Amino acid sequence: MSDEPYRLYYWPSIPGRGEFVRLALAEADAPYVDVARLPEREGGGAASVIEVLRRELSVPPLAPPVLVDGPLVLAQVATILLYLGDRHGLAPADPAGRLHANQLQLTIADLVAEAHDTHHPVAMGEYYEDQMAEARRRAAHFTGVRMAKFLGYFERVLDGNPSASGFAVGDRLSYVDLSLFQVAEGLGYAFPRAFERLRGRLPRLGELRDRVAARPRIAAYLESPRRLPFSEGGIFRRYPELDIAAI
Amino acid sequence: MSDEPYRLYYWPSIPGRGEFVRLALAEADAPYVDVARLPEREGGGAASVIEVLRRELSVPPLAPPVLVDGPLVLAQVATILLYLGDRHGLAPADPAGRLHANQLQLTIADLVAEAHDTHHPVAMGEYYEDQMAEARRRAAHFTGVRMAKFLGYFERVLDGNPSASGFAVGDRLSYVDLSLFQVAEGLGYAFPRAFERLRGRLPRLGELRDRVAARPRIAAYLESPRRLPFSEGGIFRRYPELDIAAI
Repeated sequence: MSDEPYRLYYWPSIPGRGEFVRLALAEADAPYVDVARLPEREGGGAASVIEVLRRELSVPPLAPPVLVDGPLVLAQVATILLYLGDRHGLAPADPAGRLHANQLQLTIADLVAEAHDTHHPVAMGEYYEDQMAEARRRAAHFTGVRMAKFLGYFERVLDGNPSASGFAVGDRLSYVDLSLFQVAEGLGYAFPRAFERLRGRLPRLGELRDRVAARPRIAAYLESPRRLPFSEGGIFRRYPELDIAAI
Repeated sequence: MSDEPYRLYYWPSIPGRGEFVRLALAEADAPYVDVARLPEREGGGAASVIEVLRRELSVPPLAPPVLVDGPLVLAQVATILLYLGDRHGLAPADPAGRLHANQLQLTIADLVAEAHDTHHPVAMGEYYEDQMAEARRRAAHFTGVRMAKFLGYFERVLDGNPSASGFAVGDRLSYVDLSLFQVAEGLGYAFPRAFERLRGRLPRLGELRDRVAARPRIAAYLESPRRLPFSEGGIFRRYPELDIAAI
């Protein structure tokens, strides 16, 4: 732990996986430097992300986002949120609730990876344009089967919360709710037709999305330049040819 | 926490993701019932896995493995290992080391998901035989690029551990080391040619693999019927046409 602002390292032009961390920092009102978004002459740019990945550390990160808090360097969204959740009251305080928040975040991570792979089904390091045929097939399965499975599951979680708080776990907002907001925003951006078709079956998720967006710190964040728009460079990309909802 | 044996729920015919949990339970010498491997008349079989997924719980699991400890029901391998690591001394005791173990486990989970997707690149719910062309392309990228990236990363972690323990994090064995053993076994099974080609660059991983296999409880486990063999039904499948190592 450090009194300095957190330092977040993530690709500067996309919300991507960094956004799950940014939303938690915004809700916590925690000061942070979004390092790669600084001008290059101030140590920013994508080069700053590469630099942190190459640092000699006892446990180095393989990929961003990376959160630096004094001597502590953490990677993997769910690990970073495990840490921030405890520090900023963004996770249940009881051990079971804390573990369940982590479990749900990992299930969100699975959904995010599958959403990403709709446009990169066979070669992560190559262009979408070079794997469009495979992408159509994967996207049909994603929009027709997988998206409903995952979102239906989260609806069940929200609806079945014994505290009837409307949140995913426990009686207060946690980082899981912030991440579910981002997933709903991202899927709504990338697959507007497929998402619209499911909306009627996801009333709790819709309510949660509105409620998160209306929280004062999140609302201020979303209107600020700190919030990056979705685009065709990130995880959630709007390629109309993939928004097919086969079933 | 409960004095009863743990109950593990996972598909009864494959090692799969359940194996990462089984290895931790074996090393901890923790009594557990591998529920789905019981005869059906004793409540076992795949139906027992379906049953636990359908239970009404405050936070239900979406998929196995599921670990039940008294009233606590946990899913997601890394969440289960976070719990078992603390309870059985299979993770560093210091907060940073504990988080780093979780971070490494999530990076292993990313590698496992990519290994799985080599044979199911476009439709998780359909047969391999119906996506062989796409699988060849994804496997070429995996064996030619991604496998070296991930395994090279873990080699760097093992080699750079400041304690020079030969383990991934800290000066003692953790669940991360057990999982790295399983990944090396699985990749060596599924992609013998591609894995063999990388071996010379992975001396630390090779040493770790031998060392884990030689631990008395793990050695006894590996020789017991509790250990399930790899097959063409799990994550790591030996399809010679996918073992191409394009680069």
